[in-house]
Amino acid sequence: MTRPAYAAVDWGTSSFRLWLMDSQKQVLDERRSGEGMTTAAKAGFSTILSSHLDALAAPADLPVIVCGMAGARQGWIEAGYVDVPASLPAVLEGAVPVPGESRDIRILPGLAQRAADRPDVMRGEETQLLGALDPRAVGQQVVCMPGTHSKWVHLSGETVTSFATYMTGELFDVISKHSVLAHSLNGAEGFDGDNPVFGEAVRAAFRFPQQATNFLFTVRSGMLLHGLSPTDAAARLSGTLIGTEIAGGLTALATIPAIRLVASGRLRGLYEGAFRALSLAHETIDADEAVRRGLAAAAQKLLLAQR
Amino acid sequence: MTRPAYAAVDWGTSSFRLWLMDSQKQVLDERRSGEGMTTAAKAGFSTILSSHLDALAAPADLPVIVCGMAGARQGWIEAGYVDVPASLPAVLEGAVPVPGESRDIRILPGLAQRAADRPDVMRGEETQLLGALDPRAVGQQVVCMPGTHSKWVHLSGETVTSFATYMTGELFDVISKHSVLAHSLNGAEGFDGDNPVFGEAVRAAFRFPQQATNFLFTVRSGMLLHGLSPTDAAARLSGTLIGTEIAGGLTALATIPAIRLVASGRLRGLYEGAFRALSLAHETIDADEAVRRGLAAAAQKLLLAQR
Repeated sequence: MTRPAYAAVDWGTSSFRLWLMDSQKQVLDERRSGEGMTTAAKAGFSTILSSHLDALAAPADLPVIVCGMAGARQGWIEAGYVDVPASLPAVLEGAVPVPGESRDIRILPGLAQRAADRPDVMRGEETQLLGALDPRAVGQQVVCMPGTHSKWVHLSGETVTSFATYMTGELFDVISKHSVLAHSLNGAEGFDGDNPVFGEAVRAAFRFPQQATNFLFTVRSGMLLHGLSPTDAAARLSGTLIGTEIAGGLTALATIPAIRLVASGRLRGLYEGAFRALSLAHETIDADEAVRRGLAAAAQKLLLAQR
Repeated sequence: MTRPAYAAVDWGTSSFRLWLMDSQKQVLDERRSGEGMTTAAKAGFSTILSSHLDALAAPADLPVIVCGMAGARQGWIEAGYVDVPASLPAVLEGAVPVPGESRDIRILPGLAQRAADRPDVMRGEETQLLGALDPRAVGQQVVCMPGTHSKWVHLSGETVTSFATYMTGELFDVISKHSVLAHSLNGAEGFDGDNPVFGEAVRAAFRFPQQATNFLFTVRSGMLLHGLSPTDAAARLSGTLIGTEIAGGLTALATIPAIRLVASGRLRGLYEGAFRALSLAHETIDADEAVRRGLAAAAQKLLLAQR
């Protein structure tokens, strides 16, 4: 195997992903596990990282670049936040070395928006963003990064001007499990972004977001009065939350540029379906690829340039 | 004691309330318990009703008028729904007698809105509404009935033209208990409708309802970046949900009449505070009094007029 140049790690709250990279930004090998911050805070960050590097027979002096929750206060070493407006390449300058380790390990900082009325934070997505930007873009860019806590980012060129977190994924989860709607969703099967009930719910919530918490109730009343199926009930719940999020994410834009969607797997299909339902131009960037590309850019600057 | 003319019962999902009434709509005695539909479906509706009437030494032939979930499919006897648009006094004609009982017991129906895009149901609130209407009103009326599932009703005179249910109370509950915001609310004390963070959240969500699920996240980010206290975190969560609901409830009105708020206790104070924060004219009707007045109107027509 080609000798790796560095390891790139995306260390989230509940997931750990590591890639061995060569100096040409090519992936040589990878590891994935559920040993996120929550697990690592108990088992030890150093121990977990070493076990994965050892499993790949990585050289003892291989440098490591890390993004995500490992840099949170309750993580490995606090890497703080860079305040917006922030130039993304400048974020790399806030990287913090982990002391007392035999190898060179750097943890990237997050982004913070300190406005009194719209406080917000991200950690990990700033690196994904760095890898997802359109390098040709000079004007306004809008990036949508769906997830448990979806992030919408407005940029001017490479400068993040503002961002907002929407609790879409988590709300879907707690509402479908813990509210009266759980009965209506009982037995739901998978649905995709082309489900017509999903598309209708996206359009309705995008147009009338002030009715969102009423549209949620129609999941139940639709079952009572119109026999809405469990799968369509889940699609309506999801579409309502995603439609509201998109309306929020596009607020305060004079013109709407093509949205850069950073997503993989099922969420990718749902958001692409939602954008189609709303006739919104979009371009999808694979989320895994984006974070690797962002970590590679960081490694290039922080770990390799000095060598 | 004056001989009662009838018993009035508001039988909800999780609560049972009974009033002994004289023929002049005066309350002679009352009982309250947690034996709502959920309990009664197991213990028996007849048994529970009798135990409360016996405890008040009610005559064996005392007639009873009931509203609420006792008339649901999973209740005592299904009392069906009257479809909107519906004249409220005409709702009384849909009352269903309970067969096989020694006394005359009538259960009032609910209201259903069968529109494909806005299905909705209420059960119990239609009776409260009957007791909350402004008898002098001839034009458009808007009634707000806050709760686990808040109801907003638009009327033309005494005719319900449309209504909508907002999951405000339940969302507050599941989000504060089961989401990441639980940490931020841990240790929250009571707050009232004059809490400035509550008022700000109401105004922000009313103005930008499309940001609602982002404003929810600022409960957490506000704690991380600005040290938002647990009590203010709860106030922001509540204000965001209530502000969104009010924006929804007032949608599609050319002019906004004074809102008739049907509420008691803590919710009354919160909604009055929210309306003040939005400079919206309102008049409050006590929720208990409204349901009693509605049940009395039903009893007068169904039980007493025929005697």
